[in-house]
Amino acid sequence: MNRPETPSHLITIPDVQSSRDERRLAIDRVGIKGLRYPLSFADGDDVHATIATCGVYVELPEERKGTHMSRLVALLEERAMPGAAPLSLAGLRGFVDELLARLGAPGGRIEIEFPFFVRKIAPVSGVASLLDYDVRLTAEFAQGEYASTIGVSAPVTSLCPCSKEISDYGAHNQRSLVTIVVKPRKPVRIAELLRIAEDEASCELYGILKRADEKYVTERAYDNPRFVEDLVRGVASRLSSDERFAAFTVEAENFESIHNHSAYARIARGW
Amino acid sequence: MNRPETPSHLITIPDVQSSRDERRLAIDRVGIKGLRYPLSFADGDDVHATIATCGVYVELPEERKGTHMSRLVALLEERAMPGAAPLSLAGLRGFVDELLARLGAPGGRIEIEFPFFVRKIAPVSGVASLLDYDVRLTAEFAQGEYASTIGVSAPVTSLCPCSKEISDYGAHNQRSLVTIVVKPRKPVRIAELLRIAEDEASCELYGILKRADEKYVTERAYDNPRFVEDLVRGVASRLSSDERFAAFTVEAENFESIHNHSAYARIARGW
Amino acid sequence: MNRPETPSHLITIPDVQSSRDERRLAIDRVGIKGLRYPLSFADGDDVHATIATCGVYVELPEERKGTHMSRLVALLEERAMPGAAPLSLAGLRGFVDELLARLGAPGGRIEIEFPFFVRKIAPVSGVASLLDYDVRLTAEFAQGEYASTIGVSAPVTSLCPCSKEISDYGAHNQRSLVTIVVKPRKPVRIAELLRIAEDEASCELYGILKRADEKYVTERAYDNPRFVEDLVRGVASRLSSDERFAAFTVEAENFESIHNHSAYARIARGW
Amino acid sequence: MNRPETPSHLITIPDVQSSRDERRLAIDRVGIKGLRYPLSFADGDDVHATIATCGVYVELPEERKGTHMSRLVALLEERAMPGAAPLSLAGLRGFVDELLARLGAPGGRIEIEFPFFVRKIAPVSGVASLLDYDVRLTAEFAQGEYASTIGVSAPVTSLCPCSKEISDYGAHNQRSLVTIVVKPRKPVRIAELLRIAEDEASCELYGILKRADEKYVTERAYDNPRFVEDLVRGVASRLSSDERFAAFTVEAENFESIHNHSAYARIARGW
Repeated sequence: MNRPETPSHLITIPDVQSSRDERRLAIDRVGIKGLRYPLSFADGDDVHATIATCGVYVELPEERKGTHMSRLVALLEERAMPGAAPLSLAGLRGFVDELLARLGAPGGRIEIEFPFFVRKIAPVSGVASLLDYDVRLTAEFAQGEYASTIGVSAPVTSLCPCSKEISDYGAHNQRSLVTIVVKPRKPVRIAELLRIAEDEASCELYGILKRADEKYVTERAYDNPRFVEDLVRGVASRLSSDERFAAFTVEAENFESIHNHSAYARIARGW
Repeated sequence: MNRPETPSHLITIPDVQSSRDERRLAIDRVGIKGLRYPLSFADGDDVHATIATCGVYVELPEERKGTHMSRLVALLEERAMPGAAPLSLAGLRGFVDELLARLGAPGGRIEIEFPFFVRKIAPVSGVASLLDYDVRLTAEFAQGEYASTIGVSAPVTSLCPCSKEISDYGAHNQRSLVTIVVKPRKPVRIAELLRIAEDEASCELYGILKRADEKYVTERAYDNPRFVEDLVRGVASRLSSDERFAAFTVEAENFESIHNHSAYARIARGW
Repeated sequence: MNRPETPSHLITIPDVQSSRDERRLAIDRVGIKGLRYPLSFADGDDVHATIATCGVYVELPEERKGTHMSRLVALLEERAMPGAAPLSLAGLRGFVDELLARLGAPGGRIEIEFPFFVRKIAPVSGVASLLDYDVRLTAEFAQGEYASTIGVSAPVTSLCPCSKEISDYGAHNQRSLVTIVVKPRKPVRIAELLRIAEDEASCELYGILKRADEKYVTERAYDNPRFVEDLVRGVASRLSSDERFAAFTVEAENFESIHNHSAYARIARGW
Repeated sequence: MNRPETPSHLITIPDVQSSRDERRLAIDRVGIKGLRYPLSFADGDDVHATIATCGVYVELPEERKGTHMSRLVALLEERAMPGAAPLSLAGLRGFVDELLARLGAPGGRIEIEFPFFVRKIAPVSGVASLLDYDVRLTAEFAQGEYASTIGVSAPVTSLCPCSKEISDYGAHNQRSLVTIVVKPRKPVRIAELLRIAEDEASCELYGILKRADEKYVTERAYDNPRFVEDLVRGVASRLSSDERFAAFTVEAENFESIHNHSAYARIARGW
């Protein structure tokens, strides 16, 4: 379902997409989904080479039969060319503006997901290693307004307060995933959002832990038990009192070590 | 993260969940996620044995530290017992009412996803075979109001009108997934929603097609080209004019046979 | 890519699949993959209604251009008809025999995966709930020999012996997945294989745990620390000394609570 | 489940992994799985920045209780440091050698999967865009022998010969995935393997296609119908006659546009 541009000198073949639709139904979003592209992303001054999975959509007026899909891919192709400027949170608006201009669309939306890495220092040995996170950015112009969201998912350790309290020794713990989505009022870095999630957990994760580090993280988690409810309340407290965020959602999912299902909690404010 | 009930005769151990939280943050949803359970589902008079993946959540007031997770699982366990009545769209409200009562919660939500099968008749040979779909139901009581949604995903064939028009022969086509979510005003059957999605496609799918059937579906798709935009407009037209639906969203995703990404479109109305 | 049967009375249209291929390359396996069907499965006397994901393949001689795909689906359709006998481990051979006969094939293979449930009793409170597992069966006739495998995946708790030993209190633990695949010499039940996996873990999982149960499983895991190496060695020891198994593979994957990657181990013998 | 190195000056805490196991069961593979790391990969002279998902395993002798997991992660961390040499097919052997030396292991295995991009030129318009593929490399030293495999997955178009032959117009087609795994005798580039897969399909895929290109790929697919059997036979013919490959497996999966399941075929030779 290619949507070529206006007839070129190469050929004169019908432009079906530009024909008229009579159903009088505008389409909220039409475009491409699940397109993988290698992109550079700048988080403040740190530039990361990553592989993004992208969605690029436009609003289609009721009289237009179809959009021009190939132009949507071209927007990503240009950003993946050698020498292209890295993508950034601040640059998302320009991307949307260009999308609207190129497609002649009244509205448009981009969604970009990618793995993101932070080089962390093990708490006792000081050994360095990368930890992987997932980031999801959206930027949209709809009904005359521009809006964007920044989402991050941080894997952490959670240790159950109930299990600790009622047991003579030990406490069940597990990997959890804390997901934060914010509507920013002011600039924020991905790394800062990840830090908020990690600080509210029983303990944060590392790629490499030496023996002294493993002792540290084990005891730290035991000293900081957190229910899934505590994870979302702790993060929500910080986000609520931070004027950089107009709205936020925080979710936590504990991949329970004593069950084969997850415990889950969610708080959303300001949307 | 088990959340046992009030102290039993078996033991007297602390009830951490029932202690007080001082952060003054109510939690929108807390509960269990990704729990698989074998359930029966009645679509009108047709009862299907299926395997559901479930989420069950309650709203947690700001002063409560935690919810009682085990009671949430128990609600599903009771519905999976031999002899239990099958789940149905009409029965979702009762499920939510029971959830609120058992947990003493001001709000609650259930999400149930499961594969659903329809025995279809091949168009020429008349051979019968099952086709699989996905269904997703939600039911929620929040801010004093009850709401539910019914979601279905139907795989179909889409054949590109542009490719057909500009090519001397042939036309690229592919499997597409049409997803409909409705907020029902009146009773509706899963099978009816699936039929709407299939009728708007270039052609519907079958498990078994004999040679005469394959000729039929090939020619039918060629005779009924549909852009991804046409899929969502066609379905939206039908849902808009059907008074049973207070609101709807329709999405279509074409797993393009000429690209390694999808074409996607979406229309939402009435939410 | 339907592959209809030999010309019927309905129509006379070319049978492309039955034409000759000149490349002199036999095909090891050709057929259908990823087909979902609702089936009944009998594990000993227990009959389970489940949703299976199936692959059905035949060996294709070098002179044959294509196989008849629709006949492969028909084999499953017959087993999903109301009143059909449930699938069982003992019945797999008959399924393969029928596959070879219907397709006139020198070899053939079936692969069937499905969720499987066991109603478990919580260790202290005695409360019942289902736990979900995954089962994967294969049966094949190739090079004149019949072979089958039974695979099960059991989620369990693992608690790290190193973390316990070096820490003043606590020990990191997590959900793990133990996967056993056996080549059976004599009958075995799915439930028996799952029990072996669970018995070698730090603790087994449950759907519902009351507070007294949570205390029990927490302390039990702490009393039974297991490395990922211990999980596979413990299971392998049992399988090695059990004459019912001609060959086995055991894998364990720990979804580490202190890292964002898994620890993994594997032992295979007798293949 | 960290496995720290031999006691450092920092602390003196027990080294549980180095203790003795009495079950007399060597472990085929133990290590880390599902670790994401940003790596550079050199395919001939082309260097690609990508995100790899890695497994690193060693063979564990029967008397050793556990391996040292942190050293396995360290091997990847070193290859992700700024200025590190890119990974390459030729460099895999050195990676395995280093793994064995660092861990003092009798055998070891690495598995690395990553997305890989080729900038393709649209067939008529000449417009450039990237197409994404998946690559999977393994390298292993076991029983005194070194072996490696190179695997690539190429998405392509397949058009059904039967549908074309029996229909008055049109022919069903769909996206297919062709997966090739080879055991190389001599150097080969990833891009060459991908080219073999694409040349045997009804048509190859592109990120951007202008209208003239869409006409071209539609007609090309119609002119080159291929069963799933043809895809694997075509690729197998080429690999069989290429002395660079000691062994190969080729698989093709068609995501059928007229069914909700896949057609699948596989040929393996020389293993």
